Amino acid sequence: MNFIKPKLMSKTPKLTLVGAGPGDPELITLKGLKALQAADVVLYDALVDPELLTYAPDALHIPVGKRAGKSSVSQDTINSLIVQYAKEHGHVVRLKGGDPFVFGRGFEEKAFAEQHGLEVDVVVGVSSVMLPGYFGIPLTCRGINQSFTVVTATTREGKLSDEVLNAAAYAPTTLFFMGLGKLDMIAEAYVQNGRGELPVAIVSKGSHKDGEVIKGTANTIAEVAAKKQPEAPALLVFGEGAALASNEQQVNQWWETVKTEVA
Amino acid sequence: MNFIKPKLMSKTPKLTLVGAGPGDPELITLKGLKALQAADVVLYDALVDPELLTYAPDALHIPVGKRAGKSSVSQDTINSLIVQYAKEHGHVVRLKGGDPFVFGRGFEEKAFAEQHGLEVDVVVGVSSVMLPGYFGIPLTCRGINQSFTVVTATTREGKLSDEVLNAAAYAPTTLFFMGLGKLDMIAEAYVQNGRGELPVAIVSKGSHKDGEVIKGTANTIAEVAAKKQPEAPALLVFGEGAALASNEQQVNQWWETVKTEVA
Repeated sequence: MNFIKPKLMSKTPKLTLVGAGPGDPELITLKGLKALQAADVVLYDALVDPELLTYAPDALHIPVGKRAGKSSVSQDTINSLIVQYAKEHGHVVRLKGGDPFVFGRGFEEKAFAEQHGLEVDVVVGVSSVMLPGYFGIPLTCRGINQSFTVVTATTREGKLSDEVLNAAAYAPTTLFFMGLGKLDMIAEAYVQNGRGELPVAIVSKGSHKDGEVIKGTANTIAEVAAKKQPEAPALLVFGEGAALASNEQQVNQWWETVKTEVA
Repeated sequence: MNFIKPKLMSKTPKLTLVGAGPGDPELITLKGLKALQAADVVLYDALVDPELLTYAPDALHIPVGKRAGKSSVSQDTINSLIVQYAKEHGHVVRLKGGDPFVFGRGFEEKAFAEQHGLEVDVVVGVSSVMLPGYFGIPLTCRGINQSFTVVTATTREGKLSDEVLNAAAYAPTTLFFMGLGKLDMIAEAYVQNGRGELPVAIVSKGSHKDGEVIKGTANTIAEVAAKKQPEAPALLVFGEGAALASNEQQVNQWWETVKTEVA
């Protein structure tokens, strides 16, 4: 690839894994932004807002997007590209949607780069895990829950994993990543566990201006989604907190139950 | 409180809940930083780095810190202060460690402020949930786990909650907040479930320069911690990924098992 913008390679080959945040380009961290400004090459995901590339105007911009499981560039190729660009150009910033270590395969990229002699830095980011907050859905809330589980619904076999089934059976609040295509199966697993009345919210394009939330219960959500057709990427929230989204009456009711407790 | 810096109150009383991130002041988001720059008053937690206040040089800076359960200012008082300052000064930024909705009682502050007529904005932040990534502990990792659970170990009664006990029984990977004081009880719950060999890491002051990680298993971690005395705030990670922290041999071993799979 010597035809691409050759540089004097006095620099140490280096990788910085940067979490770009969950969509809105202003949800990148100050540290991530500084890494971009110091980049020679930016390898970025499909879900990363192109506006972020303006912070690295002189760097090479290389798209390596994957969407909804369809690889345009395989993980093996991404790993190799990181090493190759770092050895040819110096500082590679790998800009990943959300946080690099939450379903991001950031750990594989880090391990591969280190095994090939690169210096590796990490800048954690705002994960999509945080998105329900934008729609008034607390991940944890006094009087409601003290824990939440995060799980990917993606499996190679097309059926639900044991981790998804365990969440449906036991977890008070669960966030499903990549779950839109399996919504009916997941909801059915809750119903089978006697949790059909549990509130459910689908958070679609959470931090974008056209983001929206769709609500139902485990019993009803598949039907509601069939009608409203939420767009990917979407996050499924199964838990009592989902009922509070954009619902003043529910919030007031919850407040009445907790406000008299000793704070 | 008319003696404090009176302003012409032409502004709408407004609250912006901002996640300051997990310690390192550069882990605030660009959006959070802009909110600070537009603040008339900043109400900030004990765990927030004071450097962040320099982005709001002309605003009132009001500490409302709580640490390790000891309230210096009660939640009821914080709620009232938010409303009072907003009505007297305009734009209150409530700067909270981590993300406002992960064990942050941000939802209560939002609900209270809305019920008192304030306009409320939210800027989600990097949660401490992301900290293990700094020590080479992936929250999710191919060949290891597809889910993680986040739970607070704090309870009023001093014993473990059902949510903690369920995590110890079923969850492949769990992050415990506020768990340092109950480490021996939590580890024992894992041992009782036949999970004594499960790797454990204690991530202490994660994003700070003096941050450190201490490792063991459910069988050994209480003893290791008694010797090394990790400092609060600390995050407990129970799960296979904890074994990978700063351990090149373990990482190589994991890599051998996954690299031959179709990526």
